[in-house]
Amino acid sequence: MIQATTKLRVRYSETDQMGFVYYGNYAQYLEIGRVEALKTVGVSYRKLEEDGYGLPVKEMNIEYIRAALYDDELIISTTIHKKPSARVFFEYEIHRGEELLIKATTTLFFMDRSKRACRPPADFMKRMEAYFN
Amino acid sequence: MIQATTKLRVRYSETDQMGFVYYGNYAQYLEIGRVEALKTVGVSYRKLEEDGYGLPVKEMNIEYIRAALYDDELIISTTIHKKPSARVFFEYEIHRGEELLIKATTTLFFMDRSKRACRPPADFMKRMEAYFN
Amino acid sequence: MIQATTKLRVRYSETDQMGFVYYGNYAQYLEIGRVEALKTVGVSYRKLEEDGYGLPVKEMNIEYIRAALYDDELIISTTIHKKPSARVFFEYEIHRGEELLIKATTTLFFMDRSKRACRPPADFMKRMEAYFN
Amino acid sequence: MIQATTKLRVRYSETDQMGFVYYGNYAQYLEIGRVEALKTVGVSYRKLEEDGYGLPVKEMNIEYIRAALYDDELIISTTIHKKPSARVFFEYEIHRGEELLIKATTTLFFMDRSKRACRPPADFMKRMEAYFN
Repeated sequence: MIQATTKLRVRYSETDQMGFVYYGNYAQYLEIGRVEALKTVGVSYRKLEEDGYGLPVKEMNIEYIRAALYDDELIISTTIHKKPSARVFFEYEIHRGEELLIKATTTLFFMDRSKRACRPPADFMKRMEAYFN
Repeated sequence: MIQATTKLRVRYSETDQMGFVYYGNYAQYLEIGRVEALKTVGVSYRKLEEDGYGLPVKEMNIEYIRAALYDDELIISTTIHKKPSARVFFEYEIHRGEELLIKATTTLFFMDRSKRACRPPADFMKRMEAYFN
Repeated sequence: MIQATTKLRVRYSETDQMGFVYYGNYAQYLEIGRVEALKTVGVSYRKLEEDGYGLPVKEMNIEYIRAALYDDELIISTTIHKKPSARVFFEYEIHRGEELLIKATTTLFFMDRSKRACRPPADFMKRMEAYFN
Repeated sequence: MIQATTKLRVRYSETDQMGFVYYGNYAQYLEIGRVEALKTVGVSYRKLEEDGYGLPVKEMNIEYIRAALYDDELIISTTIHKKPSARVFFEYEIHRGEELLIKATTTLFFMDRSKRACRPPADFMKRMEAYFN
């Protein structure tokens, strides 16, 4: 299992006229969460792309429990429960202090330079071994 | 049943460095789709807000089948299959020509001026009668 | 001189909690305006990029006169007064009906595949001849 | 004079298909810079809004010197050189390490609950005295 926590502060640009964070902007927060989760196990997403790989999203599910507000400090918890293969499955929770605001999941897959689905890079899989065996 | 179709062109700002529409930006397209669907049955979301109501999103699920590209013309089809009550359930498909790019669903609920869940406005429900009886 | 007019409707995602269009989002509207202006004279920005060119922004100035609101229909007027060379200078006005909301200018320059400043493509310059001689 | 420095990391969502940060997204960075600058002198923008004030942007000028890239760590330096009155004038520089990427200025003005220009709150002006006398 891989787990990581990262914090961010809601920007004014992320609110809408309802006074809440616009519902589509949480996708950015999830992405920050998973990039951080990969960083903590030594995988740089920037480096993955430089090596010719991409990790596009195949599926996203978000449950909105409470709204985040401007200037809130959010805590994004990201978990990989299942050993990644060609697909990587992330689970997320976003809290403001003790309050749960968001529950979400995303499924990503590896893509090569020709923009076709592919196997994960060997180095990536090797790093995963340490966390799932 | 309520069904509506609307078109839009992908903006440069909506792409990311993978060369695709950023996965979080489809939430904006879904919103445009449902606002248009409501407009076609005589409901203005702008007017709903002026009357003190809001329609925040409770849940969103998106399946990414093919990526949209810069300058693509997208066709957003929005359907309400089930008669709305305090919750409104939308289904969406986004096509580029004949190609299906996205399948999605969202659940929304009515919120009053005090930002609490509430019953839908009477006028809204009256309009719905015509489409679901 | 090249001049073009295009319309768009303000999206909910483009508002902020002040109830106005977020000040940074007008950059997107300007971009839509200049892409349309180029289209009207037979230049496709999509094609320019496919041919290995880019047109990054060197400078932007925006004067905010009145705020745009959710669901407003905006009219973007874009003008190229001066014959483009390595740099292309655009002027914009955004109206809501008769009301002037925004005045803006941007300077763009041609960039080649190696991401360095370059001369404009010959085909582009040829098209410009027709409008500035 | 008031001066403050804040750091942020470029998000994937902020890039465009040119591989750079989208030119419109720097407006968000400037806003983060000025909110931090106000915080360092004891002014909370969140509190200002709760008290019924707003600080919309009247004018923005951005000079794009070098492009920011995904995952870059940016340093935003914000300066108020002139004592604020009904208008507040900010100057900004954005660096990546030693490299200057962006120079910008914005002019903001105070707005009251009725969304009309107004004098700054007394408490705000009192705090400013300490920095400009």
